[in-house]
Amino acid sequence: MKKFAVILAGCGNKDGAEVGESLTTLLAIDQCGSSYDIFAPDKPVFHTLNYLTDGEMPDEKRNVLLEAARIARGNIRPLTEYCAENYDALVLPGGFGAAKNLCDYAFKGAEMTVDTQVAAAVSETHALGKPVAALCIAPVIIAKLIPNALVTSGDDPATIENLLKMGARHKPTKAGEYVYDEENNLYSTPCYMLPNARISEVYNGVYNMIKAMTL
Amino acid sequence: MKKFAVILAGCGNKDGAEVGESLTTLLAIDQCGSSYDIFAPDKPVFHTLNYLTDGEMPDEKRNVLLEAARIARGNIRPLTEYCAENYDALVLPGGFGAAKNLCDYAFKGAEMTVDTQVAAAVSETHALGKPVAALCIAPVIIAKLIPNALVTSGDDPATIENLLKMGARHKPTKAGEYVYDEENNLYSTPCYMLPNARISEVYNGVYNMIKAMTL
Repeated sequence: MKKFAVILAGCGNKDGAEVGESLTTLLAIDQCGSSYDIFAPDKPVFHTLNYLTDGEMPDEKRNVLLEAARIARGNIRPLTEYCAENYDALVLPGGFGAAKNLCDYAFKGAEMTVDTQVAAAVSETHALGKPVAALCIAPVIIAKLIPNALVTSGDDPATIENLLKMGARHKPTKAGEYVYDEENNLYSTPCYMLPNARISEVYNGVYNMIKAMTL
Repeated sequence: MKKFAVILAGCGNKDGAEVGESLTTLLAIDQCGSSYDIFAPDKPVFHTLNYLTDGEMPDEKRNVLLEAARIARGNIRPLTEYCAENYDALVLPGGFGAAKNLCDYAFKGAEMTVDTQVAAAVSETHALGKPVAALCIAPVIIAKLIPNALVTSGDDPATIENLLKMGARHKPTKAGEYVYDEENNLYSTPCYMLPNARISEVYNGVYNMIKAMTL
C-alpha cells in the first residue's frame, strides 16, 4: 500500500491531460491496492482547442485545475498544497497539456522551462529519493529537471533528439513497456507517443509501471 | 470481434459523461478484442458546472459533442450519423450528463423525456435485436424507452422507485456486477451509483459486462 500523488495538466489530449493516460494511472494505482491524491496547477489553460477542427477557441478561457477536476470527479487540490513528505511516489500523465501547461516544451523544445510549482513538486520528490514517473511526453519535464535521467518517449526521433539535448538518456520502448532509471529512481512509459497506440496498450504500459512502483 | 457504438454525454461526471465509466468502457471493448466508434449529440451542454464548488458557470456555453471529443481524442461523430445496422451493440456510459444532456431525468424524474436522437439510436438498435448497455444512471433511458426492461442502478432507493414508475424492473447489484435482461437483450452495471465506488470496481463491472456482450 503506497500513497501516490498524480499531477494533471487539464482535461483532454490536445490542450490538457490525456484522459486515457490519466484514468489508467488512477485505475492501476487502485488495482495495485494503493491510494492516490490528485493535484493540478491553479492557472489558465494555455489555449483551449476545438477537438474536431484542432482550431483554437480564443474566447474560451479555462483553468487547468477546474478542467482537471473533471477527470478527478472534483477530488483534486491545487498543486501548491502538494507536499512530497506525504507521498511515496509522484506520477505525471501526458497529453499536450503536459507540454503546454506544465512546461513550455510544445513551443520551445529543448529550450523549455518548467512551471515553477511543477518543478518544485518533481524536484522535492526526487530529492527525498522517492520515485517520479512520467507518461507520454511528460518525460521531457523529468529530463529538464534531473541531470542524466534515463527516460523513454517510445521511438519518436524529434522527441529523442530534444531529450538528449537536455542531457537525458533515452531508451526506446514498445507498447506495454516502461523504463526504470534505477540510479535516479525514475519511471516512464510511452503511451500515445507510440503512433496508433490502442487504449489497452496504454493501460498495459501504465499498469506494468505502477505495479513495479508499488512493490 | 464485435463493433460497438458508444454514446457520450459530454466530459465530466457532474455535467457530462463520467470520465472513468467512459474510459473503462473503451478499455474493456479494446481488451476484449472488439472495436468502437464514439458518438455524441451536437447540442448545448445543459449547464457547465464548477467542479470544485459545484456552482453553475453561467457564462460557459459548451457543446456536448465538443466536450465528449476530449475523451474520444477527437475521434467522434455527431449522433445523427449513428446507424444501428452498422454496429453489433450500443453502450451508454453514465454521469449526470446522461441525465441532463441525453434526457431530462435529473429535472423530471419518472416524467422524463429522452433526447430524440438518443431515443432513435436506442430504439433502432433494440428493434434490430442488438444489445443495448447502460451504466450508472443511464439505465433510466432504457427504462423509459423499452417496456418492462430489467435494469440495475445499484441500490439507490429513489432511482429504483423512478425506474419502477417508468415500468421497468430492477435488480440490485454490488460492485463489479452487471445485470442481463435476456428477454430484451439489455445490459446494465451500477458504477458510481454505488456510494464510494472505487475506479477498480467500476472497471470490474464494466469489463464483466462488455466481456459478456462480446461472447
